[in-house]
Amino acid sequence: MAAPRSRRPDAAPRSSAVAAGARPPLVTLTTDFGTHDPFVGIMKGVILGRAPLARIVDVTHEVPPQAIAAGAHVLRSAAPWFPHGTIHVAVVDPGVGTRRRALVVETVDACFVGPDNGILSLAVEARAVRRIVDVSRARVRLTPVSRTFHGRDVFAPIAAALANGVRPVELGPSVRSMVRLRSREVRRSSGTIHGRVLWADHFGNLTTSIARRDLAAFRHRHLSITIGGHVVPFRSTYAGVPVGTSVALLNSADLLEIAVNGGSAAARLGVRIGAPVRVSRA
Amino acid sequence: MAAPRSRRPDAAPRSSAVAAGARPPLVTLTTDFGTHDPFVGIMKGVILGRAPLARIVDVTHEVPPQAIAAGAHVLRSAAPWFPHGTIHVAVVDPGVGTRRRALVVETVDACFVGPDNGILSLAVEARAVRRIVDVSRARVRLTPVSRTFHGRDVFAPIAAALANGVRPVELGPSVRSMVRLRSREVRRSSGTIHGRVLWADHFGNLTTSIARRDLAAFRHRHLSITIGGHVVPFRSTYAGVPVGTSVALLNSADLLEIAVNGGSAAARLGVRIGAPVRVSRA
Amino acid sequence: MAAPRSRRPDAAPRSSAVAAGARPPLVTLTTDFGTHDPFVGIMKGVILGRAPLARIVDVTHEVPPQAIAAGAHVLRSAAPWFPHGTIHVAVVDPGVGTRRRALVVETVDACFVGPDNGILSLAVEARAVRRIVDVSRARVRLTPVSRTFHGRDVFAPIAAALANGVRPVELGPSVRSMVRLRSREVRRSSGTIHGRVLWADHFGNLTTSIARRDLAAFRHRHLSITIGGHVVPFRSTYAGVPVGTSVALLNSADLLEIAVNGGSAAARLGVRIGAPVRVSRA
Repeated sequence: MAAPRSRRPDAAPRSSAVAAGARPPLVTLTTDFGTHDPFVGIMKGVILGRAPLARIVDVTHEVPPQAIAAGAHVLRSAAPWFPHGTIHVAVVDPGVGTRRRALVVETVDACFVGPDNGILSLAVEARAVRRIVDVSRARVRLTPVSRTFHGRDVFAPIAAALANGVRPVELGPSVRSMVRLRSREVRRSSGTIHGRVLWADHFGNLTTSIARRDLAAFRHRHLSITIGGHVVPFRSTYAGVPVGTSVALLNSADLLEIAVNGGSAAARLGVRIGAPVRVSRA
Repeated sequence: MAAPRSRRPDAAPRSSAVAAGARPPLVTLTTDFGTHDPFVGIMKGVILGRAPLARIVDVTHEVPPQAIAAGAHVLRSAAPWFPHGTIHVAVVDPGVGTRRRALVVETVDACFVGPDNGILSLAVEARAVRRIVDVSRARVRLTPVSRTFHGRDVFAPIAAALANGVRPVELGPSVRSMVRLRSREVRRSSGTIHGRVLWADHFGNLTTSIARRDLAAFRHRHLSITIGGHVVPFRSTYAGVPVGTSVALLNSADLLEIAVNGGSAAARLGVRIGAPVRVSRA
Repeated sequence: MAAPRSRRPDAAPRSSAVAAGARPPLVTLTTDFGTHDPFVGIMKGVILGRAPLARIVDVTHEVPPQAIAAGAHVLRSAAPWFPHGTIHVAVVDPGVGTRRRALVVETVDACFVGPDNGILSLAVEARAVRRIVDVSRARVRLTPVSRTFHGRDVFAPIAAALANGVRPVELGPSVRSMVRLRSREVRRSSGTIHGRVLWADHFGNLTTSIARRDLAAFRHRHLSITIGGHVVPFRSTYAGVPVGTSVALLNSADLLEIAVNGGSAAARLGVRIGAPVRVSRA
């Protein structure tokens, strides 16, 4: 789902009717809150109470509960398609109420807001990071901060401040590092690559943490991919296998994907987000 | 659900505070993408990147996968309630990646954007069509265009261009015809009318493709309606049958609807979208 | 989920870039319509057709069908987090088409729009009510008003009028009273308090209608709470019981909540919205 570099989704509008100065601040939300409860609406109320002109776009609220790597993947997939200056808020936060930090990561073209648990790390991996700011004690937070709903009490006010033009550096001290997921999600040992399923889309296609570059050591045509007890052939397209058959291929985001031609790999292989995937020489 | 002609949902606001020039462009989205994946958010990112002032309203993203007639019906139901100048984008697109065309259909009061597979055809049926434009090769598309996600690469940029004031005729050649669903969805043979279930709402009411005018040849009181192996009586209101009993009636959109008084017809009759319905003389 | 008074989610933005005059009108929607059908999109079309600058935020559309008390609770939970002047529309309306009135309740800091069946009553309970207006026959309604969809035909046009600056008093006669849920949802008899489950969040935590003040007559440590045939201990925190064990506590909204430490109380106790809860001396 991620954007090849050659595309420019944020190209300037053809019409001159839209002046640069008229662009309202854009905030995206990615959470595991679901849409049943009022949590997402409450976050929007806090943001719009403080930044009335902000535009808010839902990426998804159906990240599986507390699935940090899945949320990180979906944020990485969506972020490249938003315009320069977008503020991306991601809240998948099993550590809420503990001492985990709250971060703003400023890149050359966007700001990312969320807990320091890796949720932001895949999205910023391909971008030039300018600054990582610890906003855990930013003055703009709602007080008292609850122990359970930092989406409302911390991240929404931070997003509103950024939307109002506050610079990240004004919100807290710069720090040197952040939790990064990459190394946890892909591991090499004696000629085998171990990864995980990061996302199952609603067609049942399974995106894994294993990237094209991880496979560089192999010759692509001679891979053996094991998932959920099944061995899946590697091909260049879905059509490389008969209808109803499982197949592994590199998707448009250059990630290893497991699919079933004309069907659901999640259902067929009985596999969920987080399941291990193994690649070795055939 | 469709609008009787006598209603004017887009009547001018009473307050003079809202000048005509201040009306931001309005874009609606109707898809089968669901809300689990980031696809809808990505489309919004592309639209707002190019048309920052556009307002985007979700009609629904829960059209059953690849159910073109269902999507066409839901678009027809919703479109009359949006104001003059609204840009309606509908993406239910099993032919994505093939040679099916991408269209803008300009009517007297709206623009409709989507693949040329019938998805737009029910909505434009009751309106004066000014122009049908083939936008398959419009310059505003993202490049390269993917083979699987024209919602992002083709339809979102087209919607953004229209929101920025680009006229449909600037986006491609005018064409004479488009795929129309109507004839496929209602068929007459030897005194019998054959239709299909177009939509099951969340109460389980089933809207069919058979309209009041299709029934003109019958005297309404003497119809025999067959669906899912059941024969259902035709009445003028739900209350024409006992609670818990199935009934057929003409709904507020002048379409034949199958319901259960106080219950779910979809559950009771074991019927889904696409199921055949037959009307004959009793 | 409700807001302690000490928090100020609608504090003025730090940036002076946002002038007060630039704040667009904000409308929230709380319904039992779900997101499968185009009903919510149609309401937004009607609102934006008449109030093009309004911002619309979904609180939730997943109130269980016709569950007035649940909707009232969710509206009460969300409303305090929205800024001054927000227009809250709530449509859970089993009496649509009957003679139940349509209301606007004007408080010191917001307007509430919905049917007079109690759906608005919990949200306005803690606020100074300025005026209750019967808008059942307001001229701004769509004509003809349907018998089944007042969200579109009555409440959306009322919300749009308020967003355009029309004052509630211009929309109909003031009335003295409205349907209030409170007394129905908490009952005392011979030392026992009887309440109900108002909401089950997506973690399975159960919020009840019993408030801190209802428990004042008891000494908190000596309560016996009965729900779904189980007796649940009262503690001050989740951690007051072992993981996997059910517990009752006062939540951040000062309502009695039934939870399972690390699990789902709804699943464990087999209990749904509307289930009775009983508190007596241990």
